[in-house]
Amino acid sequence: MTVDSEFEVANEQYAAGFDKGDLPMPPGRKVFVLTCMDARLDPAKFLGLKEGDAHVYRNAGGRAAEALRSVIISQQALGTRRIVVIHHTDCGMLLIKEDEFRDAVKKNTGEDVSHISFLPIKNLEESVRTDVELLRKNPAVLDVPITGYVYDVKTGRIHKVDV
Amino acid sequence: MTVDSEFEVANEQYAAGFDKGDLPMPPGRKVFVLTCMDARLDPAKFLGLKEGDAHVYRNAGGRAAEALRSVIISQQALGTRRIVVIHHTDCGMLLIKEDEFRDAVKKNTGEDVSHISFLPIKNLEESVRTDVELLRKNPAVLDVPITGYVYDVKTGRIHKVDV
Repeated sequence: MTVDSEFEVANEQYAAGFDKGDLPMPPGRKVFVLTCMDARLDPAKFLGLKEGDAHVYRNAGGRAAEALRSVIISQQALGTRRIVVIHHTDCGMLLIKEDEFRDAVKKNTGEDVSHISFLPIKNLEESVRTDVELLRKNPAVLDVPITGYVYDVKTGRIHKVDV
Repeated sequence: MTVDSEFEVANEQYAAGFDKGDLPMPPGRKVFVLTCMDARLDPAKFLGLKEGDAHVYRNAGGRAAEALRSVIISQQALGTRRIVVIHHTDCGMLLIKEDEFRDAVKKNTGEDVSHISFLPIKNLEESVRTDVELLRKNPAVLDVPITGYVYDVKTGRIHKVDV
């Protein structure tokens, strides 16, 4: 059975008990969550989100530089008025070094990816601060409360970062 | 009580019952899910994902053009070997027109965002096909199975798109 078929079976079950068909498009709790795509993170579970509550944007590392398009859409078209940035321990982006990684991609695929910034992370709290700052300083992002956290994959716990 | 405090309270509960502290970093089911940040979508629930299973990348619309950095990292650093693209009915990106939206942002924030492609969607199945094709044709993306779905926010159901 392929992963696709497994997804289809699991989805049948979800749809069979589905009772959220009338939720509005704008997030009910008016919040944009920016976090990592890491497989160990389930933001809905670890933040107590229900369907309809929040925009949940996720990329490798939970980096803000790549999230601007979505933040602007979230605020201007769908009314969110708070941003929460969450990076996490043992993130793959802590292992990547920009030049070495580009070399590896070149070796493995033949493709020159020097035009892509892979946005590696050196220090977790620092990366949270950098990304909160980037959002605060961008003039196309509304002046809304922005907070930062680190999620610990060993404990399931978030802790707030001074930003 | 702010959303942040609510998140912290909900997180305490999650952490209290947490038993997934030993999961490895690479996704167990070797799959990269690309979908929308929409508040009504809970991909872990509607695909039956547990912590540790899959990379879940989400942006406005679930657009591939913005996901390349993360796809490359997912494949090259963390071993995923399948991609599933999921767009959804009633997506905010169906309402946005590039020029009008840029004008609105300019009016609301004073900022010229003409350098940002907001990647609006005209037709859902077409946008899924476009994004699957974009990933298939990118030489830095490995030649892995890529499938596409549309999620229906009224029913919780996914249906496969011919790609």
